[in-house]
Formats: sequence, C-alpha cells, structure tokens
Amino acid sequence: MDDWDWVDAFLLALILLNVLAVILETVNSLQLRFSTAFWAFEVFSVGVFSVEYAARIWSCTADPRYRQPLVGRLRYVSSFFGVVDFLAILPFYVTLALPASALDLRILRVLRLMRFARVLKLGRYSDSIGRMKRVIGARRGDLGVALAAVVVILVLASSAIYYVESDTQPEVFTSIPAAMWWGISALTTVGYGDIAPVTPFGKFLGGIIQLLGIAIFALPAGIIASGYEEDTRRGRTEKGICSSCGRPFGLESESDQCIDSK
Amino acid sequence: MDDWDWVDAFLLALILLNVLAVILETVNSLQLRFSTAFWAFEVFSVGVFSVEYAARIWSCTADPRYRQPLVGRLRYVSSFFGVVDFLAILPFYVTLALPASALDLRILRVLRLMRFARVLKLGRYSDSIGRMKRVIGARRGDLGVALAAVVVILVLASSAIYYVESDTQPEVFTSIPAAMWWGISALTTVGYGDIAPVTPFGKFLGGIIQLLGIAIFALPAGIIASGYEEDTRRGRTEKGICSSCGRPFGLESESDQCIDSK
Amino acid sequence: MDDWDWVDAFLLALILLNVLAVILETVNSLQLRFSTAFWAFEVFSVGVFSVEYAARIWSCTADPRYRQPLVGRLRYVSSFFGVVDFLAILPFYVTLALPASALDLRILRVLRLMRFARVLKLGRYSDSIGRMKRVIGARRGDLGVALAAVVVILVLASSAIYYVESDTQPEVFTSIPAAMWWGISALTTVGYGDIAPVTPFGKFLGGIIQLLGIAIFALPAGIIASGYEEDTRRGRTEKGICSSCGRPFGLESESDQCIDSK
Amino acid sequence: MDDWDWVDAFLLALILLNVLAVILETVNSLQLRFSTAFWAFEVFSVGVFSVEYAARIWSCTADPRYRQPLVGRLRYVSSFFGVVDFLAILPFYVTLALPASALDLRILRVLRLMRFARVLKLGRYSDSIGRMKRVIGARRGDLGVALAAVVVILVLASSAIYYVESDTQPEVFTSIPAAMWWGISALTTVGYGDIAPVTPFGKFLGGIIQLLGIAIFALPAGIIASGYEEDTRRGRTEKGICSSCGRPFGLESESDQCIDSK
Repeated sequence: MDDWDWVDAFLLALILLNVLAVILETVNSLQLRFSTAFWAFEVFSVGVFSVEYAARIWSCTADPRYRQPLVGRLRYVSSFFGVVDFLAILPFYVTLALPASALDLRILRVLRLMRFARVLKLGRYSDSIGRMKRVIGARRGDLGVALAAVVVILVLASSAIYYVESDTQPEVFTSIPAAMWWGISALTTVGYGDIAPVTPFGKFLGGIIQLLGIAIFALPAGIIASGYEEDTRRGRTEKGICSSCGRPFGLESESDQCIDSK
Repeated sequence: MDDWDWVDAFLLALILLNVLAVILETVNSLQLRFSTAFWAFEVFSVGVFSVEYAARIWSCTADPRYRQPLVGRLRYVSSFFGVVDFLAILPFYVTLALPASALDLRILRVLRLMRFARVLKLGRYSDSIGRMKRVIGARRGDLGVALAAVVVILVLASSAIYYVESDTQPEVFTSIPAAMWWGISALTTVGYGDIAPVTPFGKFLGGIIQLLGIAIFALPAGIIASGYEEDTRRGRTEKGICSSCGRPFGLESESDQCIDSK
Repeated sequence: MDDWDWVDAFLLALILLNVLAVILETVNSLQLRFSTAFWAFEVFSVGVFSVEYAARIWSCTADPRYRQPLVGRLRYVSSFFGVVDFLAILPFYVTLALPASALDLRILRVLRLMRFARVLKLGRYSDSIGRMKRVIGARRGDLGVALAAVVVILVLASSAIYYVESDTQPEVFTSIPAAMWWGISALTTVGYGDIAPVTPFGKFLGGIIQLLGIAIFALPAGIIASGYEEDTRRGRTEKGICSSCGRPFGLESESDQCIDSK
Repeated sequence: MDDWDWVDAFLLALILLNVLAVILETVNSLQLRFSTAFWAFEVFSVGVFSVEYAARIWSCTADPRYRQPLVGRLRYVSSFFGVVDFLAILPFYVTLALPASALDLRILRVLRLMRFARVLKLGRYSDSIGRMKRVIGARRGDLGVALAAVVVILVLASSAIYYVESDTQPEVFTSIPAAMWWGISALTTVGYGDIAPVTPFGKFLGGIIQLLGIAIFALPAGIIASGYEEDTRRGRTEKGICSSCGRPFGLESESDQCIDSK
C-alpha cells in the first residue's frame, strides 16, 4: 500500500517535470545548451509512461467498470484517462517511426502540442475536482445561457462598431471578424489597444459595450456562487448535519433537523 | 409533431448560418470570391424566413393571446418576435425595391445591421432564458441603482481627471467627454493605453478610481448571486421539495417541509 | 400633492441637464458656438437651485429631525444634502463676486469641479439606494479588511517589482511610487502597457501578482453577495413571509413560519 | 490600560509612516533633499521597534501559549509575528555591522525589501482579519482546485498560441514561457498590448481563451461568496440568533430556533 503511494508521488512529480521540460525546450538558449539532457529526460519519461500505460491496461480489470478481460480493457483504452495516457506517449513513437523527411513543421508541431496531454494525467490524482465538476454540471444550463448571451452581444456589438468605425479606420476595422477581435477584448475587459474606436459615436457605443462586459462577469459569478451555496447545503444534509443549526443529528432521530430544532 | 421538430431544427440552423454569412460577407477576400454564393444564400434565406413569417401570422390565432382573427394577428405582428421576424426580412425587400442610386452608404449600412435581427430569432428556441430573465427582472431595482452609481462615479471621476490632466496633456484630455473615454476604460478595467494620466496626482487619482472599478464589478455580481440563490430556493418550494432537506415531500403532507423534518 | 410631483420631476430633469451642460461646456467647439446659451442656462439653473435651497431651509422644520426654528435650520444646513445644495450654487456666486483678476486657473477649476456637486442632488430622489447603503454598511468591516489587503499586497508587489526591474528599465521604474502605478493597473487588471516588467523574473513575479488581482475581485464580490443574501432573508421575515416556504404567514399565527411548515 | 492604547496607536502610526518613508525614499528628488531626515527617522524607528521587540519577548510569558520562561520565549521568537518583528529591524543592524565594501547592490536590495516586513506588523492590530482568514481557510480546497485549473488552462492555452503564432511573430512569441506572459495577461484580463496574437486563427483562439478568463474570475468569486454565506449562518447560530427568523432566542429555550418558530 505504502509502495503504491510512492509510485503515485513519483508519477506525479514526473508529470510536472515533463510539463516543465516541454515548456523550457522551446526557449532557444536552453534548447541549445541542454538538448541532450532534454532528449534523455524525454526517453526516460516515455519509458516510464509506457510501462504505466501497460500496467494500467493490465490491471484495469480490478475496477468493476472494466471487469471483462477483453471488452473491459478495450473500454478502458477508450476511456478519458486511457486516451490521455495514449496521447502522452504517442508523439515520441511517431517521431521515431517516421523518417525525418516525412515530418514537415506542421505535423511536428501538432505532435509537440500533443505532449501537453501529459498535464491532463494530473486529473487522476485530485479528489477535490469532483465538487467543481458537480457545481458546474448542475448549473450548465444557466452557464450555457450566459455564454449564449455573451456570443449574441458580441455579434451585435462588433457589427455595430464595424459599421460605425470602418469609414474612419478602414485598415483597422477591415471586417466584422476583425471588429469581433475588438469586441471580445472589450467584453472580457482585456483591451489590447491595437484596435479601438476613435470616432465620438464609436467611443460612446464602445463605452456602453464595455459596461455590458461587467454584466457578463457578474452573471457567471452569480450563477456559480449560488451553485456552490446549494451544493454546500445539500452536502450538509447528506452528512447528517442539521440544516438549521449546523450541529450533527442525534442518533435516535431520522429527521434532518437536530432534536433541539424540533 | 416530429415534422415540426425537423422544421425547428432546420430554421435554427438557417439562422445560425445566416449570422455567419452576414459576418463573413464583410471580409473582402471572401466577398470577392463567393459573392454569388452569398447572394444565392441570402435569397434562399429570405425566402424561407418570409414563408415562416407568413405562416406564423396565419397560425398565431392558435395561441390564446392572439385568438381574434384580425386584432390578434395585428397584436402578434407588433409583438417582440413579430417585429424581429419583420426586421429580419425587411432589408432584402428594401434593397430590391429602391433604385441603387437612392441608397447612399448610410442607409445601406443600417439595412445591413438590421439583418442581424436574425440572431434575435434564436430567442424563440430557448426555454432556459426564462430563469435569467426572471432573476435579472427581480433584481432590476438593485441593478439599476448599481448602474446609476457607476454613471455618477464615471462623471465625477472623469471631470476630476480632466481638470488635473488637461494642462499637461491638452491634446489627449481635450474635454470631459474625452476624459470619460478614459474613465469608462478604467472603471470597466479595460485600459486601452491611448489615453492615461501622466502627472503624479493624476496617477494617484486614477489608481483610486480603478480600485472603485473593482467595487463596480462586485456589486452586480453580488446582486445576481443572491438573485439566483433566491430563485433556486423558491423553485425548490414550488417543485414540492422540502426547503430544509432537499427531499421530495411525502404525498400525505401539504406542508413544504417533508415529514421527517417535522 | 400632484403639484409637488411635478416640481420634483422638473428639478430632477434640471439636475440631469446641468450635469450634461457642465460636461459639454468643456468641449471647445461647443463652447465656442453656444457660450451664450450655456451662460443663460447656468444663470437660470442657479436661480432655480437658489430658490430651492431657500425653500428647503424655510420648510425643513416640518421634518421632526429639524424641528427647532433656529437650531434645526442650522443642523439642516450642515446636513449632507444641505451642504450639497450649497456647493451646487456657490461657484456661480463666487465667480460673480470676485474680480476676474483674483481668479487664477486653479481656483476656477476647483469652482468648476464643485458644480458637479449637482449630480449628488440626485441622491434625494432615489428610494432604492437604501438597500445598497444598508448592505455595504453591514459589510463595511469585511470590505475594509479586503481593501486593506489590497493596499498591503499593492505595497509589497510594487516594491518587489521595483527592485527587480529598476536596473533594466531605470527610466520607467524610477521609484516605488512609479512601480505602484504599474501595481494598481495589474491588480485591478486594467493594464495600460506604458509600464510593464520586461525581465524574465519580473514577468514571472508580475504574473503571480496579476493572479492575486483575481482574488481581489473575488473577495468583495463574495462579501457583497452574502450581504445581499442576508438582507433578502431579513426583509422576508420582516414583511411577514415564511422563511421556509416564501408564502405569507397565516393571520392567526405569530410565528415567522407559515402554519403549514409547523 | 489607557496608556497601553496610546502605545498601540503610536506604534500603528509609526508603522504606517515607516512604510510611507521606505516608499518615498526611492523617489530620487526626495532622497536628495531629505536624506538626513530619512536617516534620522530610520534610526528613531528602528530604536522604537527594537525596544518593542525586546518588550514583547520579555512579556510574552503572560500569554498561556508561551508560559515557560525559556522554551516559551523561544517559541514566541519563532512565531509569525516574532519573525516579522525581527525582520523589521534586521536590515538596519546588518547595514551598520558590515563594511560598505561587503554590500553589493543585490544584498542591499534584499535588505531594503525586508524593511517592508514592517507592513506585516499591522496584522497584529486588526481583529477583523479573522473572518477573511476563516472563510478562505474553509474553502482553501475549492480555491486550490480553481487555481490548479487556471494553471492547467494557462499551460495549454499558452502552448497552443505559441505553436500558432511563433511563425508569424518569431521575435515576439519566442518560446512558451514568453507566450505564457501573454496567457497570464489574457486570462487575468490585464492585456498589455506588447504581445498579442495577430494571425486570424491566433485571434480566434485568443478570443476563446479570454472568454475562459471570465470563468476564472467567476469561480473564486462564487466560492468565496458561498463561504461568507456559510460563515454568516454559522455565526448567527453561535450568537444565539434564530436561524429561521433572525431574532434572539428566548432564554427558556435551548433550541436554535426561537420559540415563535416552533
């Protein structure tokens, strides 16, 4: 049992170091000096992850969801973490298998990006993600409506600004998609400054749109706040804590309020 | 019945494709290459939307709100979605009816912008908008006060910054309306960088104003959060779920708390 | 009674037009063309506001708080709205009384800024401000702690960035107060771009500081949300609505839960 | 007793003036004119803080946590405020003790930054920090998951943008760490403008990432809101206030709901 914890800690550290390595490899000066070390670490990591992948496929039948020897294993391979584990090691073997000439820049980049699948392996080690997923899941309808409202506002705001500003700044607001780049920056309050209205009416309209951006922050914050609130209340009831006073129920009671509250 | 669902899905897809088309038409390179396709799609869409508009006017008497053959139909035409449906097809017929010479750029632009009314037709297909409208409606008083507070702070902050900065940057802070463009960017935390205080006192004042911007985000978020919270609690009671423990009421009980809680 | 409503509506409109006029006066082109109209409107407004001020001092004894003829009137004059009313008309009379030579630019500006006190007169006409003031008042302790946390984080973050970046950008990060201008922009997520870290370590530190900026938004939003929540619950109890089911109490009951809930 | 309050107020003011002095010392023009005054104030402050430090070590045995004469004092010295008090005076004595030649710029800077430890001494004088610490502590699991989600999104988003944009802007998006500077600015909605996607696909991706930034604000705001909410409810029960109606309990009742509610 203790051994297993050590394996977990080792794999966790290896994943974090891998993400760090893939990030630092893109820094030219580091790549030039430590290319051999990066390569050695990559070979070592893929080796470990391959063994881990094989071991997980082998032992997944211990999980009741994947009990059948063949079908269960196939279902594990196509489960979320099964795919993530596969994607994490795939780029290395593809690069080895193919001749260098077959790899143009585009394919190489996609392969490199796929190495970041390793960061998703982290999800396996966190129990606390559950609550976040549960709250977001329970409110996905409300959050979806809020997102749709953002998109509708974005389309209307960007089109209006485009028709107002394209005369004065034809080389900046070249099209509605270009105006949408301003729109998304204004609504999310990022504001890059490379593209902004300059006419008085455009600025007036832009100001109102930015005020709407506040509402766009307030809606999901409010939705998620009430989601966590609800989840906390439900959790309290399930744990046998009185929903009125927060004290644990008496044993002789089957109600969800403690004896004193009755 | 199933047929109707297919019609709905078809109309939904057509609306989304229309919005996409109106956006992409403004991209010069696409407009040059696919102008015939865009035109054909516009003719087809307006045709479908015209048939839909006529069908809706014809059949609206099935809705108890518009029961009377004439008065009901007139009331439907002047309802929100009646107007939206009309605005969605109007620009096409106006462009056809008027000679090209009568259409100067401004009118053309307004007509093109009106085509975006099509995105509002989407509202008909979403049931979940109801909750958002209900929460915002119930809290419109509080939200209105928060908005008024933003406007008062905006006026006071922009005027103060104008009097502080107009000496040092006379060509940037030319007037209070110009300073309000900075003010709205600071309060909504967008921050373009084309206009910003440079004097020490102006920066000190600007810093305090930006801190106020946080409060301006916090107020509506808090208001909407407590609105969703309230709506959830009321919904639970209406659905016959115990407000204390979250379990459904026993059938024999007329109270809003389940039997165990009593 | 109805007459009084008309006077209120007239004064409300006059205040809004005044704020608009004071804003638009600073636009050069408008000031040049309409200077006489602006002046006439100012004379008219100050006349009306002076009459209003005198009438309010005369009739304030009707309010139990200011019952005594002399002491009550003096207390009214020094109350919040008494001072606001006085500040709203003061600049006009000072400008008339003093010779033009005695008014240097600085005094003129302060006088002009004081004219914006008129926007605060609006506060008298809104009943709904009460709830916002009540919620913010009840949570002023929590909000004060959050503000203090912002200031402490601002001081520590700006000092750290100053010592990290002042070598590389000595003309940008000239001192800690200059770095605090960056700090406040980063923490409030405004981000002007005129001042930003460029060294790798400075950017790393800056990234962490900006993440802290999120917490600084989340704290007041959460505090205010729970404040509105509490206020809603208390209001429900006071209005005689059952705190469990949201239905009004039965008349025969003196409890704050309706009969069914018992 | 009253004397002690005066000592507290004096120390509080001295801490605030010290933080101000350390900030203003970095402004060149002030440093040149008032260097003697700054030095005198530093000597005076360190003197007072040294006496305070000695007095606190001497009298800490009055606190039951540090009762034993020697072990208790050692534990006080290594407590949070014990270390803060030490760090606040250390830089002065180190600068005195070492010859000027031994102090290169780096060490000097760290010593100067350490002087800001004085701002943390403020923590001792605030009772209201408790609630903030309690709420954040109770939700540290949820907040930690939200922070981890930000970091995972940051890594994935920055890597994707890097591979999309590094061809077009090789000197801006030089590496993934450089892209992460953009990523953190986009996700925290700061947006500096010195680095931003320019390709259509990069802007499309960037827009989606910025929308995710909204979620990143909404999550902690929602978590903290429900934390304050929970804390308020628990506090009400502990203070003996009915959890249903907000009125204080009757004396004869041991329940947490007031008599009327039963």
